[in-house]
Amino acid sequence: MSGRRKAIVTDMGYSTPDRIVVRGHDLPGELLGRIHLGDMAFLELMGRMPSHRESVLFNALAVTLVEHGLTPSALAARLTYSGAPESIQAAVAAGLNGLGSVFVGTTEGSARLLQEAIPDARHPPPDLPAVAAGIVADWRARGAAIPGIGHPLHKPIDPRTPRLFALAAENGFDGPYIALMKQVAEEAARVYGKLLPINATGAIGACCSELGISWRACRGIGVFARAIGLVGHIMEEMHNPIARELWTRAEDEAREHALARRDGA
Amino acid sequence: MSGRRKAIVTDMGYSTPDRIVVRGHDLPGELLGRIHLGDMAFLELMGRMPSHRESVLFNALAVTLVEHGLTPSALAARLTYSGAPESIQAAVAAGLNGLGSVFVGTTEGSARLLQEAIPDARHPPPDLPAVAAGIVADWRARGAAIPGIGHPLHKPIDPRTPRLFALAAENGFDGPYIALMKQVAEEAARVYGKLLPINATGAIGACCSELGISWRACRGIGVFARAIGLVGHIMEEMHNPIARELWTRAEDEAREHALARRDGA
Amino acid sequence: MSGRRKAIVTDMGYSTPDRIVVRGHDLPGELLGRIHLGDMAFLELMGRMPSHRESVLFNALAVTLVEHGLTPSALAARLTYSGAPESIQAAVAAGLNGLGSVFVGTTEGSARLLQEAIPDARHPPPDLPAVAAGIVADWRARGAAIPGIGHPLHKPIDPRTPRLFALAAENGFDGPYIALMKQVAEEAARVYGKLLPINATGAIGACCSELGISWRACRGIGVFARAIGLVGHIMEEMHNPIARELWTRAEDEAREHALARRDGA
Amino acid sequence: MSGRRKAIVTDMGYSTPDRIVVRGHDLPGELLGRIHLGDMAFLELMGRMPSHRESVLFNALAVTLVEHGLTPSALAARLTYSGAPESIQAAVAAGLNGLGSVFVGTTEGSARLLQEAIPDARHPPPDLPAVAAGIVADWRARGAAIPGIGHPLHKPIDPRTPRLFALAAENGFDGPYIALMKQVAEEAARVYGKLLPINATGAIGACCSELGISWRACRGIGVFARAIGLVGHIMEEMHNPIARELWTRAEDEAREHALARRDGA
Repeated sequence: MSGRRKAIVTDMGYSTPDRIVVRGHDLPGELLGRIHLGDMAFLELMGRMPSHRESVLFNALAVTLVEHGLTPSALAARLTYSGAPESIQAAVAAGLNGLGSVFVGTTEGSARLLQEAIPDARHPPPDLPAVAAGIVADWRARGAAIPGIGHPLHKPIDPRTPRLFALAAENGFDGPYIALMKQVAEEAARVYGKLLPINATGAIGACCSELGISWRACRGIGVFARAIGLVGHIMEEMHNPIARELWTRAEDEAREHALARRDGA
Repeated sequence: MSGRRKAIVTDMGYSTPDRIVVRGHDLPGELLGRIHLGDMAFLELMGRMPSHRESVLFNALAVTLVEHGLTPSALAARLTYSGAPESIQAAVAAGLNGLGSVFVGTTEGSARLLQEAIPDARHPPPDLPAVAAGIVADWRARGAAIPGIGHPLHKPIDPRTPRLFALAAENGFDGPYIALMKQVAEEAARVYGKLLPINATGAIGACCSELGISWRACRGIGVFARAIGLVGHIMEEMHNPIARELWTRAEDEAREHALARRDGA
Repeated sequence: MSGRRKAIVTDMGYSTPDRIVVRGHDLPGELLGRIHLGDMAFLELMGRMPSHRESVLFNALAVTLVEHGLTPSALAARLTYSGAPESIQAAVAAGLNGLGSVFVGTTEGSARLLQEAIPDARHPPPDLPAVAAGIVADWRARGAAIPGIGHPLHKPIDPRTPRLFALAAENGFDGPYIALMKQVAEEAARVYGKLLPINATGAIGACCSELGISWRACRGIGVFARAIGLVGHIMEEMHNPIARELWTRAEDEAREHALARRDGA
Repeated sequence: MSGRRKAIVTDMGYSTPDRIVVRGHDLPGELLGRIHLGDMAFLELMGRMPSHRESVLFNALAVTLVEHGLTPSALAARLTYSGAPESIQAAVAAGLNGLGSVFVGTTEGSARLLQEAIPDARHPPPDLPAVAAGIVADWRARGAAIPGIGHPLHKPIDPRTPRLFALAAENGFDGPYIALMKQVAEEAARVYGKLLPINATGAIGACCSELGISWRACRGIGVFARAIGLVGHIMEEMHNPIARELWTRAEDEAREHALARRDGA
């Protein structure tokens, strides 16, 4: 055996016979009944309790990400539940597995863009419009869509964005990341000659940046928020199932096409 | 094609170009900045907003379930992250997959026991001690452990239980389910002749029942709460990894044993 | 620390700088180019190489379980892929999560029924029709569907069953488990007064039992076989995607219903 | 509703009351008893049956990927099983979720590198050493490890590589991709001044390329192969569990450190 090179250490929590400690706090004595779930999530991610103003904005971001109706993720969770109703945890997990580069995971894209442009919020670059112009030119040259702007459905604006930015402003988080995100959207609209409003993804990435949350953690917020939404969908699926109907329709249509092709149609 | 037998309908939410509706509420206008994440979870599960008292108890239940240190579920998530760091959603999902009949999923056991004994909270059976005696006798006859009592580590009491029951009492939820859970624990201690305190599982099952949450939804609360904790573990794993150390130790020890056996040791 | 109570040992395999050993065999020297994937699966499950006859039947069982078209599991995998195309492993995993008590996992039901009725294949009970009658009466009394018989689509027979039983007979595996499965189906048809042919699940459970595979391993065969099928579906989804269409249809239909209800329709 | 823009079509398979068709073949009549599981996998991936020579090499590649002992993936599956033993499909899925950019998923890296350098195997570039030099220079300039070469344990050679290349040669697949992989390894050794042998990942990527398998499908082969191995690990975990021991050790060590820090040690 090659020996222990590294200790197994965690700051998340531990238990003894009479105590349960989470992030340095006594769970029953200091947390239960004193903080709600959203602030517990902040504590888990950041290792400290949020201020009231941080709590308002952080909870708003998380609430935004909980529920989006019949997304591919919700459909996957419901289809999985229909095959293994004894394992609702696995149905939620199936739904989470799809939160990658296309959906939800995208919040990290806009946060990363902003945090790479402004590594230190206390010393933002003086000329944000120039920074924005550089970003837009760079993404355009690579032929890639700029994260955080544009939406296939929500036009001319994404209704979540002004509300989140208003909450940020009311709570003192109207800083350089939100300013830069707005500059990027304006510049992109000018360069591409079309409306490219900041979508919820962009608003959340900017607000997370203002809260000092690393872009690497942004996807995580979407993951746990959506876990709540997926539990909701599975509860509904118990009482008002749609998975079998989705399955039957897909299977029937595919069979019809297969038989038609077989018969030379 | 066999035709549409059933409409695809959901009450969870939907979007139009200018609106996002969740559980009947306008997301930006009515929810963002007004409710925190725990109440959003209540809304998702129950289809209505919680009262203040419901909110306090529901959030306490959920907060209880977020973090338990280096559980098998947390270890599985960290090991998964070490192989696919680009997919933190999949690492969380791997951790959730283990929340089955042995861990977390067990909250549904005590809730079910209580809700089957008291189908209607407005008309609880008059003689709860007799009901408890029947329950203990029944589980004993089947040779099965009664859900919600006893704990391998937390002795003589599980410190979460008195706190949760105190919160229930303070908020007007000290009803027949909690009373029955206490009777079951007392009766079991008497019959088995050993300390069998109500554990967090039992306390949560009883509190959920007082809140009118079906036992079928109890596991779901554990699932989304733990999703928060698993995101926390993965954030820590990014900065202070332990997965490779766990792997190397296990692999080295197994190799050592295998070589010893091969060499006739 | 409470000390090491148990060694970390495995018989599955280990590596040294110049060797890779799997189930006691040198992987490059003894396995690569000498056994195909199905026999490798037998080796993994049973700890020994199959005979030629075992190989034929075992591979036929596994091949049966690979592909069933657009099942809920395949749809869940495709929907997951659409959100996280960079993680096809997670899409396959999402599909596998649904192989529970309703689909695929059911193979273990018929195998368990047979193996509990005939614990030792060398000493089967002399009167199989009486055993079958007891089984049917027992499941009927519990109001539960007997695993392994009946099929919603494949009527009057499941075309896989005669083929699998023929392969079993050709290879010397036409023993008491298959005989009992047939008796159960006959008795059930008599008692329920309708056609209840042995389905693929029942045939596979019986054949596994003949091969000496524990019912506890049967679901595992379905799991890895279906993993192959799910990879196939995801490869097809890359080139001919259907997930977005499924999503859009579901979302559009749900929105239409929601708006109609909102408008008092 | 926005109408049907796209038909739901699949070539994977479909069923009618008396037929089950997989990839255009009648499952009972043409496949069961005639092909083994590895060739079924080839059929699923490629849409056609393999030749005998293709079968030998393809099965060897897949067999290589089945079992690697106590990997992070196997540990995650075992830990998940310990919490949800009723859902072995979810334990396998948890293990698969970790087959990303660090493990197993890496086969696609070497295949991609080779296939991008030689888009058409019938017209390979004439000067492979020059192509290899370009590849090595390019990866070096980016400061990234070249996929498919080097191994932390298997030195001086990975014992799987010569065996796979011998099987390729014996079966007529000793073409430009394997030649280029060898050139890349030689050039890298020269440039970096250290031994950088082709590892199994590189050998598999090269052999897949020779077989005409797109790099996009390579990870899929690892996924289904490892699913077989994970089922094996879970079967062993049933009889000889190690998950609880891994958990207890980790939890005990973490608690010890946490208490020591709390006490100012």
